[in-house]
Amino acid sequence: MIRSLCTIADKCASLDSIATWIDIRNKEVSVQVERIPFKALDKWEVLPDNSLHHCSGKFFSIEGIRVKTDYPNPMEWEQPIINQPEIGYLGILAKEFDGALHFLMQAKIEPGNVNNVQLSPTLQATKSNYTRVHGGKNAAYLDFFRNAKSDQIILDQLQSEQGARFLRKRNRNMIVKVDGDIPLNEDFRWMTLGQIKELMQRDNCVNMDTRTVIAGIDFAEHFVSDAEMAEMSDFGRDMLHSAFAQSGVKTLRGVLSWLTNLKSRYDLFVERVPLNQINEWECRDDEIVRYDKKYFRVLGVRVHIENREVVSWCQPLVQPMQQGICAFIIKKIDGMYHFLVQAKLECGNRDVFELAPTVQCLTGSIFNGAPRPPYTDYVLNARKEQIVYDALQSEEGGRFYHEQNRNMIVIADDDFPMDLPSTYQWMTLGQINEFMRYSNYINIQARSLIAALKYK
Amino acid sequence: MIRSLCTIADKCASLDSIATWIDIRNKEVSVQVERIPFKALDKWEVLPDNSLHHCSGKFFSIEGIRVKTDYPNPMEWEQPIINQPEIGYLGILAKEFDGALHFLMQAKIEPGNVNNVQLSPTLQATKSNYTRVHGGKNAAYLDFFRNAKSDQIILDQLQSEQGARFLRKRNRNMIVKVDGDIPLNEDFRWMTLGQIKELMQRDNCVNMDTRTVIAGIDFAEHFVSDAEMAEMSDFGRDMLHSAFAQSGVKTLRGVLSWLTNLKSRYDLFVERVPLNQINEWECRDDEIVRYDKKYFRVLGVRVHIENREVVSWCQPLVQPMQQGICAFIIKKIDGMYHFLVQAKLECGNRDVFELAPTVQCLTGSIFNGAPRPPYTDYVLNARKEQIVYDALQSEEGGRFYHEQNRNMIVIADDDFPMDLPSTYQWMTLGQINEFMRYSNYINIQARSLIAALKYK
Repeated sequence: MIRSLCTIADKCASLDSIATWIDIRNKEVSVQVERIPFKALDKWEVLPDNSLHHCSGKFFSIEGIRVKTDYPNPMEWEQPIINQPEIGYLGILAKEFDGALHFLMQAKIEPGNVNNVQLSPTLQATKSNYTRVHGGKNAAYLDFFRNAKSDQIILDQLQSEQGARFLRKRNRNMIVKVDGDIPLNEDFRWMTLGQIKELMQRDNCVNMDTRTVIAGIDFAEHFVSDAEMAEMSDFGRDMLHSAFAQSGVKTLRGVLSWLTNLKSRYDLFVERVPLNQINEWECRDDEIVRYDKKYFRVLGVRVHIENREVVSWCQPLVQPMQQGICAFIIKKIDGMYHFLVQAKLECGNRDVFELAPTVQCLTGSIFNGAPRPPYTDYVLNARKEQIVYDALQSEEGGRFYHEQNRNMIVIADDDFPMDLPSTYQWMTLGQINEFMRYSNYINIQARSLIAALKYK
Repeated sequence: MIRSLCTIADKCASLDSIATWIDIRNKEVSVQVERIPFKALDKWEVLPDNSLHHCSGKFFSIEGIRVKTDYPNPMEWEQPIINQPEIGYLGILAKEFDGALHFLMQAKIEPGNVNNVQLSPTLQATKSNYTRVHGGKNAAYLDFFRNAKSDQIILDQLQSEQGARFLRKRNRNMIVKVDGDIPLNEDFRWMTLGQIKELMQRDNCVNMDTRTVIAGIDFAEHFVSDAEMAEMSDFGRDMLHSAFAQSGVKTLRGVLSWLTNLKSRYDLFVERVPLNQINEWECRDDEIVRYDKKYFRVLGVRVHIENREVVSWCQPLVQPMQQGICAFIIKKIDGMYHFLVQAKLECGNRDVFELAPTVQCLTGSIFNGAPRPPYTDYVLNARKEQIVYDALQSEEGGRFYHEQNRNMIVIADDDFPMDLPSTYQWMTLGQINEFMRYSNYINIQARSLIAALKYK
């Protein structure tokens, strides 16, 4: 694993050749997304309350919810949400070549991508996909994950998706090691972890599903040789050091107690309400949108993809109305990097709060002069030498239309205040990894940033 | 902590004097529970669908749910459930006397107890209690828990309650260490952990809320001196050995992967339905009961307690229709004790499956000759020398009327089969403790048995 992390110039394929392959794939394909009225969505049904359901009764639906919480602010609101109660697979096959694990990545087209093709896990399939509820071919490589033996499984975690958009959605994140020959479809390529992380430094190249799986790898679980240690950057060695730390400013028990206190203190009640009656929102023929145009809207689209074959289908997509920013502030405390983590309440969370990046909010004119969330200005005004990571990354193109957020990791100045508001906490990477093992603790935005950490 | 675990003959109070104190408390009090029609319950409202709600809109309610799952068997059913979405405190104050931690226990009256008084945590309060929604005095010692500083907190966990009866209910389990003088109300006594565990060997003496808090203590986190080690029984030393083991027959990652697979494979959908329309159940004026009289029924009661003062109130209580059994089979594998754990799906679980004892089921004539759950006969037919623990223990007397279940720990014979059905797993005590830290993994029945483990 660590060999893979440190390998960027690889014999199988150079970084340039992979980037070129993605570019070519992008040019070869034409994706048209045409807005159509909801009633014209093939295989979708519009119920009397305007909620949208797949005709199979499976897959996902767009419904209305009312949210009440005693956590400020606001205390009560209504919104549409994506309801997809099934757990799907996000699976990556891994195989050793020349002593380094390689990961089988897919150049995958999604209708909502800003570009057409991004690097995706080997398998990305909802339960409806792989039980073939909405027709189509059987997902490639599915059986490797379904039939994986326990000694092949490198990673196997249930992880949450965006709590502001999905109602308690989760996926099964897996990495499965294989030995034998694997038939290689032309949309698939083997690459090292170092290469994937290198591609994450570019805008919108590695998709959200890949990032969440990669984030789950705990390097402290894997053997690191002196030679590999020497190959890493100073920052990489510092991160590995932090990954080994189960205790930092606070013990693991202390962090859990802080989170227990917050979960006990604040209630989150979510109930279904008819979509056409939710406050502040309007259901039109072809969009569900807020009167003030804030946050996001739901569209009906017909997707038309021309590639080696022609495929076409209809579905709802969610389009953001602003760009957002997700940023971790990190700081060396007593020689050890700590991440400034925020406990964030979102309506789709399964357990009230999840741990989020220091800053996770919309940008643009949305605050209209009102005070912005803590640390937002600090991150946006960071000097170049403080910035470890800065790239645009896309959210899941199967549900979100042209949604990209700025992902940043910023090193705090020496005089950055150690005292934090009550919903913020300093945590080591080892503590974050420990929480990652158990479901519904680290949110997808935080995981996406952890995945982007470079060690070389 | 370990000193406390090993201290049974204590200077503060002998075990006999504590038992006598509980006996006297039991005799001093008179508890009358009178069945009355639901409509006659003061401060309770019967909605048109026969669901029962406290007039404050808080506290708890009795509602109807429909459960659907693709996990066998049955696949779909309806039932009443207790809905109490607030998180309450179960808190024990701890203080050092003569080098051993002592715990402040309360002789607490609950209307549903088979006896009147059982040993309860220092603080046992729902959010409605301590925000005084239904009147009454402010809970004693509440502020010690609300204002606890992080270096005082020995334990702080969110833990689930009975998933077959409560809809996703949880409590905050806390142990808080204090130094100064604590005013001692006459219903309260300091005692050691060794004494509490000794009292757990008796029937219905230590209440459910105490057992769940005690279960969360991880002895592998505390320093054990050679002298303390020498004081323990062979079984106690073996348990401590198992508590230190993060890996057993399976690694922790392997156990998590097994559980991830089950949670991904099976769906659990729970929706509210009108209580008076649920299948197989009948709403009468004074009870909600199944036509076949199985499982449980809901009663309306007026409680009248005469003690130093007279108190009276009305509430619904849930009465079981059978006794049940909760039993762990344990086995030394490669010299290390393993617990045979069952992943159990219950309708009120927050996350589909929780880890339960080997056997957790009703007894009596309920199976009518049908095959009983795995290992039930093995446990019921255990020879005397296999039985480490066997006592009747009560469920929460504030909600359940005369509910007691047989709690057992049984050592497997040498020829006990190592191969398990797919929802069963061998786990070390260290692995169970690790899962205990994170919420909604180890169910209340399993925790109750872990609490009963004796080390001396």
